[in-house]
Amino acid sequence: VVPKVLAYAERHRNANIERLFEFLRLPSVSAQIEHGEDMLRTAHWVSDAMADAGMDARVIETDGHPVVYGERRSPKAKAPTVLIYGHYDVQPPGVESLWTKPAFHPWIDSAGRVYARGAADDKGQLLAHVLALDAWHNAGEDLPVNVKFLIEGEEEVGSPNIAPFVEKHPQMLACDYVVISDTAKFSSDLPAVTYGTKGLIYREIIVSGPRQDLHSGHYGGTVANPVNVLAQLIAAMHDDKGRIAIPGFYDSVRPLSDEERAAWKALAFDEGHYLNETGSPQLTGERGFTTLERMWGRPTLDANGMVGGYHGEGASTIIPAVAAAKVSVRLVPDQQAEAIGQLFDDFVYEKCPSSVVLEIRSHAAADPYICPADCPGLHAAKAAVAKSFGREPVLIREGGSLPVLPTFKRVLGAESLLVGFCDPNSNAHGPNEFLHKKDFEAGIRMSIRLLDELDQAMNS
Amino acid sequence: VVPKVLAYAERHRNANIERLFEFLRLPSVSAQIEHGEDMLRTAHWVSDAMADAGMDARVIETDGHPVVYGERRSPKAKAPTVLIYGHYDVQPPGVESLWTKPAFHPWIDSAGRVYARGAADDKGQLLAHVLALDAWHNAGEDLPVNVKFLIEGEEEVGSPNIAPFVEKHPQMLACDYVVISDTAKFSSDLPAVTYGTKGLIYREIIVSGPRQDLHSGHYGGTVANPVNVLAQLIAAMHDDKGRIAIPGFYDSVRPLSDEERAAWKALAFDEGHYLNETGSPQLTGERGFTTLERMWGRPTLDANGMVGGYHGEGASTIIPAVAAAKVSVRLVPDQQAEAIGQLFDDFVYEKCPSSVVLEIRSHAAADPYICPADCPGLHAAKAAVAKSFGREPVLIREGGSLPVLPTFKRVLGAESLLVGFCDPNSNAHGPNEFLHKKDFEAGIRMSIRLLDELDQAMNS
Repeated sequence: VVPKVLAYAERHRNANIERLFEFLRLPSVSAQIEHGEDMLRTAHWVSDAMADAGMDARVIETDGHPVVYGERRSPKAKAPTVLIYGHYDVQPPGVESLWTKPAFHPWIDSAGRVYARGAADDKGQLLAHVLALDAWHNAGEDLPVNVKFLIEGEEEVGSPNIAPFVEKHPQMLACDYVVISDTAKFSSDLPAVTYGTKGLIYREIIVSGPRQDLHSGHYGGTVANPVNVLAQLIAAMHDDKGRIAIPGFYDSVRPLSDEERAAWKALAFDEGHYLNETGSPQLTGERGFTTLERMWGRPTLDANGMVGGYHGEGASTIIPAVAAAKVSVRLVPDQQAEAIGQLFDDFVYEKCPSSVVLEIRSHAAADPYICPADCPGLHAAKAAVAKSFGREPVLIREGGSLPVLPTFKRVLGAESLLVGFCDPNSNAHGPNEFLHKKDFEAGIRMSIRLLDELDQAMNS
Repeated sequence: VVPKVLAYAERHRNANIERLFEFLRLPSVSAQIEHGEDMLRTAHWVSDAMADAGMDARVIETDGHPVVYGERRSPKAKAPTVLIYGHYDVQPPGVESLWTKPAFHPWIDSAGRVYARGAADDKGQLLAHVLALDAWHNAGEDLPVNVKFLIEGEEEVGSPNIAPFVEKHPQMLACDYVVISDTAKFSSDLPAVTYGTKGLIYREIIVSGPRQDLHSGHYGGTVANPVNVLAQLIAAMHDDKGRIAIPGFYDSVRPLSDEERAAWKALAFDEGHYLNETGSPQLTGERGFTTLERMWGRPTLDANGMVGGYHGEGASTIIPAVAAAKVSVRLVPDQQAEAIGQLFDDFVYEKCPSSVVLEIRSHAAADPYICPADCPGLHAAKAAVAKSFGREPVLIREGGSLPVLPTFKRVLGAESLLVGFCDPNSNAHGPNEFLHKKDFEAGIRMSIRLLDELDQAMNS
């Protein structure tokens, strides 16, 4: 059965690329109000593509941009269910002049890279799954598992409506596994299955001192300076070993197992290449851990921005009235965002002197996610990727956060399988975002196979 | 003789206010290129006013806005010489809507306050001295001392050309004392003579990390974050007692004498009023010192501004590529700006990790100034102020910096007498700047008397 479906997809390679280009031409920028109609148009395009793939599909309103939901059942009794999640919205193009061709005019270069905003994140990757279903359907084959699609339109603006949506529709979304292609390979030529993502808390700290900026000569040394105080608060968040100095912060951190550390050490991770990619003078971080361990397995804390006082040309001698910083903390299992957020706030309040007024705002929160190593779905995913990309994938984690994964686990009880296949340097949020044509096609094959592999894994 | 001159000024009160209004109508904003012609017009207005006062006066070109120089000699043999310094340029008006009437439309309220940009800083104060000379001249009296005027047009933009000018003209500017009215009374109803100003170094610290902003999930914890590093550098500049933690920083600080501390303690300084003026939640600062001691007698360090990374609405999870801060340090006798600047730079370079690239820029430097307590001119100044303002002045210092004072001392060998008479809350750089009419008139009397007092002090 599977070879027949794969053959159908192979025969329709050109048509599939045409569909991808069509999808990429839709400027579905969720952050920009002027694209409201484009968002709706794109949702309906996705719904129509699902219908072509033989699914019951519909566009469902939310408080923000709509969700596209589709499903097709297997005729088998007691077939397992797979929920495929993705997002049809994209980042804004940013500075258009940095793009070789306009962001919503997809084109393909001689190396086979398809360039357009959303090619990798996430239109190209989600479409591969829709076209896999299309192949199953139009090859005339019954599905080995029930398949559901949940495609949202607000991932790039923090998915404000997806958790409520999942909580509202636990029956409709009920599944054995969630499948997501919104991550990257380990390197251009080494596929990966991702089994963990970090959690996140995001705080804004606002320190107010004098009513207005004061002359630093007339008032200096007599009142607290909000920039100095905020610098002290941020500095206090790390100790001199690169560890986060918030009391109790590490209590719930699950230590990396010897197996995991050994597996990561065995990966051909090129530190020189990585360093060069960042442009930083050198790699650094928490003492006693490798770069990959820091990236995937250890919590981190970053000031994402800070502003206060004078920052124009030359000199202005003031005590600023106010200073503000944004701070994000990436969490690892088994840290919980709410508990760590409380520790963070307690720490900042305790450290902050009474000579200023402190305000802390919370902008986002997500729990970390990790798929158990003995999860059968993980092995099915590895097998489908290995057969489709011609190379055994490596098991990796991800330093970024996917807030929806813990929601799926909590509400649906389902583990998530992250089978993304874009390039790790796909410029996902920058100019000239791309997806390799060959990876798009391998992604379709992988999705075709994955349904079969998951069926086998769950029946064995 | 003096009573006759005072009587002349008294008879010309209305004319003097008219002259002040005329002067205040000229928008001599040194920072704004579009006021170039206004600057020249104002310089000539000052020169003409000096000529009316019987002086040889001229406008002298510099690399920036011109200087006005005037002199009138005493017929006496071996008469001492007084150099009166001031500035005809003003701050930009700022937000016009915050002014009751436009900044360059002077008006007087029912309490006798003259409102206009430059009323206090420094047109009103410098004009009092010119009009004092006018009274001596037009009352038909010979001057008891030689008088020179040096009125610059770049004080509000950091006086870039005044030190070179003084160094170039040591003979022309040779004097026994410098007299300046560019400071404030201790309070509305208590006049002051200021005998010390703080020095200043002003640095910009730029910390660069990655080539461009990085995703804090993908790269967090593996490269140094410039905002975090800069926060650590700024935090390290103070210890937990509010002292500046740069090694050697206090080595050249002259301790406050018991007499000075006792004199300042005797001043009716209202901490509650002061705190309320700042709008800060509480007063703070270096442990072991009073607010006045911190303000006048102890070095201070302030971050004047800091910027780096994301500071828009909501959340952006980045490791910023670069962060920058401006830091000013106010110095006290006998600290020298150059030596302290070197200590500062050494400290920052030593504390900065090699995981970022550090750059330090210098924007301004000034040495502190203090007039010796036994200086005869100081007593002459006190006497002239006491007689003219109807109350014995207090001797105070100033937290701000006047870079030209150490230059006068170094090049001309002359001490400076700071006999300013604006209100301490005159809104010198803000909206609705004002000078009391009665203080303007008392200032003219004070200047008339000061020439006589200085003559007596130097002959006794």
